[in-house]
Amino acid sequence: MEKSIKVFAPATISNIGCGFDTMGFAIDEPGDIVIVKKNKLNKLRITKITGDQGKIPKIIEKNTATGALLPMLKKLDIGFGFDIEIRKKMPICSGLGSSAASAVGAVVALNELLDKPLSTEKLLNFALQGEKIASGAIHADNVAPCLYGGFILARDYDPLDIIKIPSPKNLYCSVIYSDVRISTNEARKLIKKSIPLKKARKHFGNVGALVKGLMTNDIDLIGRSVVDEISEPARRHLIPGYDAIKQSALDNGAVACNISGSGPSVFAFSNSKHKAEKIGLAMKKVVTKLKIKNNLYISKINQIGPKIISWLDFDKW
Amino acid sequence: MEKSIKVFAPATISNIGCGFDTMGFAIDEPGDIVIVKKNKLNKLRITKITGDQGKIPKIIEKNTATGALLPMLKKLDIGFGFDIEIRKKMPICSGLGSSAASAVGAVVALNELLDKPLSTEKLLNFALQGEKIASGAIHADNVAPCLYGGFILARDYDPLDIIKIPSPKNLYCSVIYSDVRISTNEARKLIKKSIPLKKARKHFGNVGALVKGLMTNDIDLIGRSVVDEISEPARRHLIPGYDAIKQSALDNGAVACNISGSGPSVFAFSNSKHKAEKIGLAMKKVVTKLKIKNNLYISKINQIGPKIISWLDFDKW
Repeated sequence: MEKSIKVFAPATISNIGCGFDTMGFAIDEPGDIVIVKKNKLNKLRITKITGDQGKIPKIIEKNTATGALLPMLKKLDIGFGFDIEIRKKMPICSGLGSSAASAVGAVVALNELLDKPLSTEKLLNFALQGEKIASGAIHADNVAPCLYGGFILARDYDPLDIIKIPSPKNLYCSVIYSDVRISTNEARKLIKKSIPLKKARKHFGNVGALVKGLMTNDIDLIGRSVVDEISEPARRHLIPGYDAIKQSALDNGAVACNISGSGPSVFAFSNSKHKAEKIGLAMKKVVTKLKIKNNLYISKINQIGPKIISWLDFDKW
Repeated sequence: MEKSIKVFAPATISNIGCGFDTMGFAIDEPGDIVIVKKNKLNKLRITKITGDQGKIPKIIEKNTATGALLPMLKKLDIGFGFDIEIRKKMPICSGLGSSAASAVGAVVALNELLDKPLSTEKLLNFALQGEKIASGAIHADNVAPCLYGGFILARDYDPLDIIKIPSPKNLYCSVIYSDVRISTNEARKLIKKSIPLKKARKHFGNVGALVKGLMTNDIDLIGRSVVDEISEPARRHLIPGYDAIKQSALDNGAVACNISGSGPSVFAFSNSKHKAEKIGLAMKKVVTKLKIKNNLYISKINQIGPKIISWLDFDKW
């Protein structure tokens, strides 16, 4: 029987208002599934991609999953190949770290299949290389929380210094995805290359306060700290009804609401599942009224990162 | 007998590398002493200032201590006056929050003398108004740690939101003051009004990491986080031998070394008193070699803020 593995890698929310290109966290759902199976061809192949409406490249150098595996295989110098199947279980270009999830799912699956030759830290580097294919640059704020779970802070990129931040058990996240197209690369172009120092200073204060709020289970402080002087003012217009979505979240008990990554997904924090559901439905109502297709996700913070779903049992896939 | 009180208010170190205009902490020494005594003239007077070489204004509207007391007295609507004596026990324009210490010492002394009519939060606002006279703007990163003790983070200024950050018990600070003149206002002019987003992002990462390092007693992480893309590059040339001072600190076991406030004082962090002394002496050696007068202070983090030294006992003053 061929050795194979199926791994789930979670969606992630980056920026978190104040932590532009610096902070992110993982949620329980949605997420991508990556299946890795040994083959005897001594080469890497993408055998199948589902859930992407044909939008994700199948060329291994251009796909974020296999783009992460290529340097990893080179490093490991292995004498056999792998078949990769990717099941996109979340919308692409959604601001939910879809490309990061596929890259992380792939490197974790391969590492497990090979009996863990590489540390998580090493895997991070390969996943970042994969994700770079989609975003054009190294950004750890989706890849790192996807891989480690929980909240992360990318202190530095050179050398990479990823800091895990503990978070409250009762922190819930409501996410509304509107089916409008925003490309990460295009959204990045809306961000100016410099920032007034006064605005930067607000981010210093809010990032520090967010870290303290997370570490002390202070959900009000978390809420006050999710303030965005960079991404939200530049990108809110890309998300139809953004102000109304945000207001509906706050009106229904959210402590904060902001753009997830470069959008169009919008997330809101609250302190109970009940509130998270109420907030989610209120946000969904706004988007539905605009006649825009949408997905709603209600989730706790995912503290574990990727999950092995199964080994070997092909028939159930 | 006339009612009177003598209060010590500690020096503070702001910016801390990454936390420009946002973070600061108090040290055990040096600090200023403010004496407040009731008078029957129904007016506020500065009766004496020592240790300032005649440089601090005695006009009550232009002095940071009485500048803080004026709005406080107006608020309290008190029918009698006060004599104020200020003993500068630290160099002025040193980057050690000298004007903040006098303002904090004054408001705390008056509040104690009047049996605490105002909360610490209210006192903060008056002290900030006093300090504004010296620095030209509201900056809480010296005033707040001086008043509260420990590390603080100014999350927001409007409305003011001051967050206390716990810190390791074995965190020591070595401070070398070089007797060269740097005016806070002049030093501020060296700072550009905008910052490349890439550099701002480094500060986001480092502020968040510094908060985590402080809260988890991770002195290595604290050291890695004290990185400055704003103040140090713009102001290092104002401090003779700055690079050599910093190198000597790092060579002798400091986990970080940077400019205190707008300088010329330089601080270094380490994890023991022994190291802090060794680092301090090494930094002092560099400055002394340049034939510049200097003061060395070795201190733990001051966790309590201002301290009442005595009531009434005039003879011992």
